[in-house]
Amino acid sequence: MNASRIVVVGSLAFDNVETPRAKVDLAVGGAASYFAVAASFFAPVAIVGVVGRDFPPATLAFFRARGIDLEGLQIADGQTFRWTGRYHENMNLRDTLDLQLNVFADFIPQLPSSYRQAEICFLANIDPALQLRVLSDLQQPRLVAADTMNYWIENAQPKLIELLKRVELLVINDQEAYQLSGRDNIVKAARAIIAMGPRHVIIKRGEYGAVHFSADSVFAVPAYPLEEVVDPTGAGDTFAGGLMGWLAKQGTLTVAAIRQGMVYGSVLASMVVEDFSFNRLRELDQEGIDRRYRQFVALTQF
Amino acid sequence: MNASRIVVVGSLAFDNVETPRAKVDLAVGGAASYFAVAASFFAPVAIVGVVGRDFPPATLAFFRARGIDLEGLQIADGQTFRWTGRYHENMNLRDTLDLQLNVFADFIPQLPSSYRQAEICFLANIDPALQLRVLSDLQQPRLVAADTMNYWIENAQPKLIELLKRVELLVINDQEAYQLSGRDNIVKAARAIIAMGPRHVIIKRGEYGAVHFSADSVFAVPAYPLEEVVDPTGAGDTFAGGLMGWLAKQGTLTVAAIRQGMVYGSVLASMVVEDFSFNRLRELDQEGIDRRYRQFVALTQF
Repeated sequence: MNASRIVVVGSLAFDNVETPRAKVDLAVGGAASYFAVAASFFAPVAIVGVVGRDFPPATLAFFRARGIDLEGLQIADGQTFRWTGRYHENMNLRDTLDLQLNVFADFIPQLPSSYRQAEICFLANIDPALQLRVLSDLQQPRLVAADTMNYWIENAQPKLIELLKRVELLVINDQEAYQLSGRDNIVKAARAIIAMGPRHVIIKRGEYGAVHFSADSVFAVPAYPLEEVVDPTGAGDTFAGGLMGWLAKQGTLTVAAIRQGMVYGSVLASMVVEDFSFNRLRELDQEGIDRRYRQFVALTQF
Repeated sequence: MNASRIVVVGSLAFDNVETPRAKVDLAVGGAASYFAVAASFFAPVAIVGVVGRDFPPATLAFFRARGIDLEGLQIADGQTFRWTGRYHENMNLRDTLDLQLNVFADFIPQLPSSYRQAEICFLANIDPALQLRVLSDLQQPRLVAADTMNYWIENAQPKLIELLKRVELLVINDQEAYQLSGRDNIVKAARAIIAMGPRHVIIKRGEYGAVHFSADSVFAVPAYPLEEVVDPTGAGDTFAGGLMGWLAKQGTLTVAAIRQGMVYGSVLASMVVEDFSFNRLRELDQEGIDRRYRQFVALTQF
């Protein structure tokens, strides 16, 4: 069976990243980039987004070589979205030092007609109004997953609440789950979010892994303990990409598929942080994925 | 095969505990109490410690009813050790508000002759000089495990380093592992500690679970996601008790036994925090343990 196609909408960016031990400027990033590269290991992906004229043609060529459809990627006059951030010694924490929306400021997602029949959709972290717009352009979405962030929880809650009613799976980090739900306990937060719409909630906990909640299942996967984390940027979007790619490949949203998908997401996330941007995924092959997957089995079995 | 006997040395205390949602005074606590009660589900335990004349006879009777040997428990003139602490909203964090050593101030552990042939020993968090003293009184220790804390890392490092050379398994929390090793990464910290002596290091991460490291194995067990944590006090000592009890019952220190032991430790720890003191363990039976163990299997399998 062919894997279903995933439409992802989200940011493509240049990141200037400083960690306690390294620094990079103009690394290609953005949620949609990380997501698409990760998901492309398992399923066809189609991007909806915008970049400026400064976005590297080599990266576009790399996306295409990975089978990522770029028909919905607008190339606008101006500069690509830029994010500058600095990680703390504890790399679960970071400060945003600068944010330049550039072409992203006026971004209106446009779905090419070839995208409209996609059954699977990932609404990465952008304005919920835009997430809703993409969703309404899909003719028969079967699996809608989304991410969001504190900014939208604070500043666009009505639209976000509207969106959640139409989302099957929310992938969100722990602090944002607490903020969205108004609860400070992971179980209570997940239950509260499920009551808002999503049947499945996956709460990301950075270096501690991720936990899935649904009405009748709780599943925790640890992050892989790494000796050297070069750059955590994009780990959460890579996790979501691996997860959604796996679900698209399986064509089913069973608890078993979600659990395996979370492990594949964790596999890819554990690799992407070993280098800047998604460089670590460039030479990755199925054997490399399988090897790390077996390490996750060894890490967790008792 | 009968389970080997475990000698534990450590504190017995009265705890005054305040959490964001509850408060208790004079709850029976202390590392040796929690450890012994937890371990007693799997193996015979013998306590080395001291209490004052104010320690409740009913608690001593409860210990005895659980088969815990109290011959090495001194009952001294004066008051039992008291700890007063307050947990933050994030219950991984707490402040010590008051500490009264009382009879613990002059405590010199004395091993009854009936304890000296014990093969398994847990040196809970006390002065490394006293941990060494207990160790030297054992005639043929086969498995020596220990815990410690920031105070001894800062103020008794030479003795602690001496102790580590004679310890097979160190159970320590993440912040203390970073402090002891001088490394800020969990893998590097574990490797550095293994280089100090212990073949096995288990790093406790509170609500995120625990990770075991040895030369050829890494194993992560999540904590059970609980809707209501009443009081996290003693969770780490309960975890160690369940782990060591299971290892004593198996009579072997294989990686498989350590992994299962960590799950049993997590099972008991996930229960002990559901009430103050070790009250939740008072009515617990094997069926209750097995039920939560199956929940851990369901929580982690993919």
